[in-house]
Amino acid sequence: MSNVRTESDSMGEVSVPADKLWGAQTQRSLEHFRIGHDLIPREMITAYATLKKAAANANLAGKRLDPAAHKLITQACDEILEGQHHDMFPLHVWMTGSGTQFNMNVNEVISNRCCQLAGTPLASKHPVHPNDHVNMSQSSNDSFPTAMYIAAAVNTTQRLIPAVRELHDAISAKAAEWMDIVKIGRTHMQDATPLTLGQEWSGYAGMLEDNLVRLDSALHGVYCLALGGTAVGTGINAAPGFAEAAAAEIAKLTALPFVSAPNKFTVQGAHDALIHLSGAFRTLAASLYKIANDIRLLSCGPRAGFAELLIPENEPGSSIMPGKVNPTQAEALTMIAVQVMANDVAVGFGGAGGYLEMNVYKPLMISNIAQSITLLSDGCTNFRRFLVEGTRPNTKKIDEYVERSLMLVTALAPVIGYDKASKIAHHAMEHDQTLKQAALELGFVSEEEFDRVVDARKMVKPYVATEQ
Amino acid sequence: MSNVRTESDSMGEVSVPADKLWGAQTQRSLEHFRIGHDLIPREMITAYATLKKAAANANLAGKRLDPAAHKLITQACDEILEGQHHDMFPLHVWMTGSGTQFNMNVNEVISNRCCQLAGTPLASKHPVHPNDHVNMSQSSNDSFPTAMYIAAAVNTTQRLIPAVRELHDAISAKAAEWMDIVKIGRTHMQDATPLTLGQEWSGYAGMLEDNLVRLDSALHGVYCLALGGTAVGTGINAAPGFAEAAAAEIAKLTALPFVSAPNKFTVQGAHDALIHLSGAFRTLAASLYKIANDIRLLSCGPRAGFAELLIPENEPGSSIMPGKVNPTQAEALTMIAVQVMANDVAVGFGGAGGYLEMNVYKPLMISNIAQSITLLSDGCTNFRRFLVEGTRPNTKKIDEYVERSLMLVTALAPVIGYDKASKIAHHAMEHDQTLKQAALELGFVSEEEFDRVVDARKMVKPYVATEQ
Amino acid sequence: MSNVRTESDSMGEVSVPADKLWGAQTQRSLEHFRIGHDLIPREMITAYATLKKAAANANLAGKRLDPAAHKLITQACDEILEGQHHDMFPLHVWMTGSGTQFNMNVNEVISNRCCQLAGTPLASKHPVHPNDHVNMSQSSNDSFPTAMYIAAAVNTTQRLIPAVRELHDAISAKAAEWMDIVKIGRTHMQDATPLTLGQEWSGYAGMLEDNLVRLDSALHGVYCLALGGTAVGTGINAAPGFAEAAAAEIAKLTALPFVSAPNKFTVQGAHDALIHLSGAFRTLAASLYKIANDIRLLSCGPRAGFAELLIPENEPGSSIMPGKVNPTQAEALTMIAVQVMANDVAVGFGGAGGYLEMNVYKPLMISNIAQSITLLSDGCTNFRRFLVEGTRPNTKKIDEYVERSLMLVTALAPVIGYDKASKIAHHAMEHDQTLKQAALELGFVSEEEFDRVVDARKMVKPYVATEQ
Amino acid sequence: MSNVRTESDSMGEVSVPADKLWGAQTQRSLEHFRIGHDLIPREMITAYATLKKAAANANLAGKRLDPAAHKLITQACDEILEGQHHDMFPLHVWMTGSGTQFNMNVNEVISNRCCQLAGTPLASKHPVHPNDHVNMSQSSNDSFPTAMYIAAAVNTTQRLIPAVRELHDAISAKAAEWMDIVKIGRTHMQDATPLTLGQEWSGYAGMLEDNLVRLDSALHGVYCLALGGTAVGTGINAAPGFAEAAAAEIAKLTALPFVSAPNKFTVQGAHDALIHLSGAFRTLAASLYKIANDIRLLSCGPRAGFAELLIPENEPGSSIMPGKVNPTQAEALTMIAVQVMANDVAVGFGGAGGYLEMNVYKPLMISNIAQSITLLSDGCTNFRRFLVEGTRPNTKKIDEYVERSLMLVTALAPVIGYDKASKIAHHAMEHDQTLKQAALELGFVSEEEFDRVVDARKMVKPYVATEQ
Repeated sequence: MSNVRTESDSMGEVSVPADKLWGAQTQRSLEHFRIGHDLIPREMITAYATLKKAAANANLAGKRLDPAAHKLITQACDEILEGQHHDMFPLHVWMTGSGTQFNMNVNEVISNRCCQLAGTPLASKHPVHPNDHVNMSQSSNDSFPTAMYIAAAVNTTQRLIPAVRELHDAISAKAAEWMDIVKIGRTHMQDATPLTLGQEWSGYAGMLEDNLVRLDSALHGVYCLALGGTAVGTGINAAPGFAEAAAAEIAKLTALPFVSAPNKFTVQGAHDALIHLSGAFRTLAASLYKIANDIRLLSCGPRAGFAELLIPENEPGSSIMPGKVNPTQAEALTMIAVQVMANDVAVGFGGAGGYLEMNVYKPLMISNIAQSITLLSDGCTNFRRFLVEGTRPNTKKIDEYVERSLMLVTALAPVIGYDKASKIAHHAMEHDQTLKQAALELGFVSEEEFDRVVDARKMVKPYVATEQ
Repeated sequence: MSNVRTESDSMGEVSVPADKLWGAQTQRSLEHFRIGHDLIPREMITAYATLKKAAANANLAGKRLDPAAHKLITQACDEILEGQHHDMFPLHVWMTGSGTQFNMNVNEVISNRCCQLAGTPLASKHPVHPNDHVNMSQSSNDSFPTAMYIAAAVNTTQRLIPAVRELHDAISAKAAEWMDIVKIGRTHMQDATPLTLGQEWSGYAGMLEDNLVRLDSALHGVYCLALGGTAVGTGINAAPGFAEAAAAEIAKLTALPFVSAPNKFTVQGAHDALIHLSGAFRTLAASLYKIANDIRLLSCGPRAGFAELLIPENEPGSSIMPGKVNPTQAEALTMIAVQVMANDVAVGFGGAGGYLEMNVYKPLMISNIAQSITLLSDGCTNFRRFLVEGTRPNTKKIDEYVERSLMLVTALAPVIGYDKASKIAHHAMEHDQTLKQAALELGFVSEEEFDRVVDARKMVKPYVATEQ
Repeated sequence: MSNVRTESDSMGEVSVPADKLWGAQTQRSLEHFRIGHDLIPREMITAYATLKKAAANANLAGKRLDPAAHKLITQACDEILEGQHHDMFPLHVWMTGSGTQFNMNVNEVISNRCCQLAGTPLASKHPVHPNDHVNMSQSSNDSFPTAMYIAAAVNTTQRLIPAVRELHDAISAKAAEWMDIVKIGRTHMQDATPLTLGQEWSGYAGMLEDNLVRLDSALHGVYCLALGGTAVGTGINAAPGFAEAAAAEIAKLTALPFVSAPNKFTVQGAHDALIHLSGAFRTLAASLYKIANDIRLLSCGPRAGFAELLIPENEPGSSIMPGKVNPTQAEALTMIAVQVMANDVAVGFGGAGGYLEMNVYKPLMISNIAQSITLLSDGCTNFRRFLVEGTRPNTKKIDEYVERSLMLVTALAPVIGYDKASKIAHHAMEHDQTLKQAALELGFVSEEEFDRVVDARKMVKPYVATEQ
Repeated sequence: MSNVRTESDSMGEVSVPADKLWGAQTQRSLEHFRIGHDLIPREMITAYATLKKAAANANLAGKRLDPAAHKLITQACDEILEGQHHDMFPLHVWMTGSGTQFNMNVNEVISNRCCQLAGTPLASKHPVHPNDHVNMSQSSNDSFPTAMYIAAAVNTTQRLIPAVRELHDAISAKAAEWMDIVKIGRTHMQDATPLTLGQEWSGYAGMLEDNLVRLDSALHGVYCLALGGTAVGTGINAAPGFAEAAAAEIAKLTALPFVSAPNKFTVQGAHDALIHLSGAFRTLAASLYKIANDIRLLSCGPRAGFAELLIPENEPGSSIMPGKVNPTQAEALTMIAVQVMANDVAVGFGGAGGYLEMNVYKPLMISNIAQSITLLSDGCTNFRRFLVEGTRPNTKKIDEYVERSLMLVTALAPVIGYDKASKIAHHAMEHDQTLKQAALELGFVSEEEFDRVVDARKMVKPYVATEQ
């Protein structure tokens, strides 16, 4: 039949769909690992194409790869980097723990694409052999983790960090805009002393700023690449200088400060740098969970909740009740946060689970990391666009809480004494009065005095107030 | 010096404090495992004393143990079961993963206590030898997991289940008491159609009832004991019938349906029954987290929160502000819930981490399980006594929310049509009116009609309302 | 332009691709929740079609739905159940936490499909209205969790349980086949007394058997459906008897014992039954992790490892080294196990995170549960087919270990005394001899006596040995 | 009765044991939070004493605290810092989520101790009042997190980092010592190309070195203190400059670079810096898990395992079998690693769970963090002293594996071609021969040639080999 082609590897021949560029080992994996719906993250395709191009460049410079093969390989890699051939990478996450089959998938596709470019038959492995040329100086054991680190670093810097920064900026802008809106504080979820809405949101901005520092710091280890360690870290079959040259090529191609790891046994036996990066994602997730939760609380209502914030109405809340605006973006973001925290558990235990010269939880690790990056990036962007940017303060409600609060009595204590202040507060509570009503009714203070002293605006800037 | 005594084991002699009943192997463990502050859970002392007594009984019945040794061993065990000698078990959780050293601690203490009872010198191992008599027919490999299962089952049934049941009963009593207090419902934290406070709390009672069923079901596997499998599950060195006889003795001593596990390799290579039990604790923790969180939300205020519930004031909330009652019991319970969920992760990964004929995460597993049982038991009890039982509804606030709610407009839709009902709600929202004000102002319905139709009491019992 | 169609909802009009059956609310969700790659699990499409058909049947029986609309709805549902229209459900997991938008997606697709069947224009909502007819007597708040429970129960019973049972059977068959192959036991990863390979694998079979019991038990709570509780659990707008009738219809359609939950507040405020089910998946994952790890250990080699088991060679292990058969199926299964354990963390914390009348982590929960079911089912099947069934014992190696083991000295102790037996073992260890060589060299026992007593075959069946 | 004393707070009078220094609020907490056995970590006592002393110094400098009170407070603090009075802090972890009661415990003990020093009656609150003087310029809401950060940073730097460094050094020394011992590598747990034992252990050393960098980096955020933010972050009631002055005092007292956090809302609403630090502990735990696991594998035997490493015999492995040395230190360390990973889950979810102006999972967070620090510190120290330092290579076994390995055939491929090399390996495998036997038997190479080419020593230093 014309719709299949025979490919071969060291175990023999395998039929492959004629319109596919992959070879025997990819096909074997497809048949033995029909597990679930999750494919190796698409980010790994690009990362591996970068790696194969860099290796070809280094091998050309090292005079191991002939210029013709180099030209074909780099052309095929460029096509992949431009987004072509992505449907030629059909393998599932749940495969060999070393990712070998995906490395071979890459090698086979590039080899066959080179055949097409050179006009030789598919499966001929000529002029570019998947192992001898595409995989030159490499093993799956060093190339797969290198591709993982590239994928993680590139997507953290290009997608996640910008998305976090934009969310930070949007929140920071709101904080500046609302810096003078005095509102009631809440600790233990109970009414507390006032602060401004801008101060509250400046806290969120500060949290995100700290996360940006942490992400940046967590990338340092990820920039140290295993490539050149080959099978077990000794670098057998790799040319001297290949490790450093290939890392430099990868740095050039990605514009990121990748270097060759000082100890290959360290980065092939385990992938702690990815665990640590995932931990930084987890901390970011915790921050986002808290921020989204706060906004959900502050916007709850409209009549029986806090209702201090008015959030955008993006979709019908209910066909029955007008005014029911559900905090759906906050819900999506808190779900994302929980998922990222769970992914982090997978990365941690997978990362800890390696034996001797190689960790065999690699596809699991990169799958969870890639999902975390995507969810956090998209989540921050959506949350910013469809919630934060359109949120407005409900100043009527905010003022009402401040006015009715019993906490402001704090300011009276230095003037009339703690005991009388306390009596005012209790009286107000029992008779459902404002502090002012209670204070005047009890006759502890004149109206002028009360208005002068009990001023929430001063309480939110105690330093300034004291200095005046 | 007179304040130490020489004890010995197969590796030689060791000095032990003269006032201690333990022997050489315990002392070696003390010196090699000075890690942290956590001792093997005290529940394991009782469980092991039960086991050793049961084994002695079974060995007597099997004519392997002479009556004199049996009498001494059981007397020593009874003393431990009465609470004596607990300070003779000083070993830390972080020891050998099989718990062998704790088993030897038990064997050594019983042997030396028998020496005291028999008037022979300590360390003489006569007339009761720690290995030959106290450990007869046993290995650490079957006795330690057996003691774990005993400790888990006994404490789940005697402490946790009663505490959950009492909390259930207290909540259920409140649900009954408040069954007719109509309040606003909230979904997405946004105002929704009404329900009664009793209905809301009946949901919590239902959650706890389901947890009791789950705990009961999760105990089934825990009743299957490894004892009799000895070193690797084959039962080498145990007499025929010992496994069944000892399990029956344990069942009698604990009044729980323990049996000998049908396959010893299953219960020595792993301890899945404990993982599953821990999973049931985790589900209970999730329920308690939600219930405590709800009560924290419903009681938040007093002026700037929901304030539907008034919770007991157990301690000063603040030296400044009267009326600040912090939901501290809810905070303790949610912290406990998070800890139990984390403990469950430890139990799961520890339980999964065994190799071949034995799991070596046993002390970790029982340590986390024992803590989860204790925290959940004490947490439920405190939450019931110091929060649930003293909580009262703030009917003034509850009524106000219902009265001001826009959701009741739902009931008007079938009478005046969805469009007009919708206009009423929007009008009320925009002008900060009640539904009734808006309805009358718009002239869509008479006051009599409005009062007849818009009745929250009917909305909470739709079935009854429809049937009338 | 002809390639879009105008759909509308209570917020106004929206353009929808002309070839899609979904409506305005689906389209809004697509635009506001472009997050990640994960769609609502496809299992939810089938579950919801089952639910909508059951509701239509119940509404027909309750004389609320006219026969013509009923016929159209059930026909559309049947088409979906047959696998049609699945590409009309494009929504992402990371949406509103109630799943409302997916419920509306289902309602809109069925409504439009009914239009097609009835010959009316798409978007006309006539003769079948998405809310009034397809969603009749329902809210997202009760229908989405009901669909979650249906999806979880159906897939657990139809996919997971059979896959576990088949794996159990395959392991059990090996256990029977290998029941007399005596091998060395290992505890603490150190040589221990012998057992048979069949006994070892019978332990694995027993673990899976216990998991089947646990899965079955964990389904009980999942059979209790929220449907009929509508918005907050009171059942507002649902007809009397609808809850019970719809649950009975669902039971009939799925052949599973679904019933209406006794307390709707319990099952709408939280979804503890799913947490518990996920916990059962986690315990299964722990078992599989251990089993796969054991087989990885037992098959390690070929020259520098245990090499007791010979596993199938499914793909080239290395282009360099013949005989390098990597335990790739074990690696895939342990990765799956870690993922399921992490998913369980997400389900637990998501399940705990609900507030008041509704949990808003529903899509997160069902997404993780669906993935766990799929991974465990496919993982068990692949592990059975491509590893367990083709595994063979390496009896040469197995025998060698037993022969060289020092542990068999245990059997001599009762004959020549512990001290002499101990000397034999030490002598063998120091001089790298077999026990027999050492015993004869030391002259403690004759060759005949040694051969009679030191018999590993008897040590693995101590009970029988004793009885003979 | 003379054995109690009456103490009072804003809620009234409470009886306190006469021999205790604590006051009314501590006593109330003891009665309302009898939960479990875990006390607030002892590290918090020292941290709080440091904080109170620093605050007193800052308040003296700010001319708010009179010198007499300052002298008494700092003297009491110094006593606590010297280890006195630690039994005066009896409160449990599971208390109010803000830790307020522990702050009051500290305030009350210092106040009463000042009474003793000044000769005034206990409970007189004179001359040093618990709130007015000891707590001056502070709230629990800023002081408790500050104490948490101090406790975490001090113990990480003083206990954990040195313990990790010493373990690193011990492993590194072994790596240097063993740098030329060629051994077989293992990937996928299957025989692979050789490396040296020193290279393998250099990988472990590299992992620990990376962890030291990560710990150091993770501390940066922990050095930013909340003190001065008081109730909600605005700093109400704190004097201008107090925040900076107090942080500077804390830096001086601890010799660590503490500063006042730039945004107090950020560090009071959440404690992300602790989440991130816990994440660094988790990565360290993952490294230790892998290292301990590897050593457990490499030392397994003595006859039926790898047996490449000989570990110290610290305790009897078994009373039956000589030579059974269990890797108990590795077991303790892997248990610790799992516990730390689970603790990290608690810290993450607790840290994410705060609402609005304050996180109420503080005692949970510091409890888990303190335990992780202690377990990791003690675990590293024990593992180093009782395992790493005494481990020796079993060169006989190591050499045997290398000699028998089929992997060395790799070196022949460039000389006689891949096909013949492959045939040699297969022949050796089938006939249980060494490579050399097979090579000579097949006649593909002379003995001299074989010995020249197949040299594992060159394979572990491929770069050098190639350059020659």
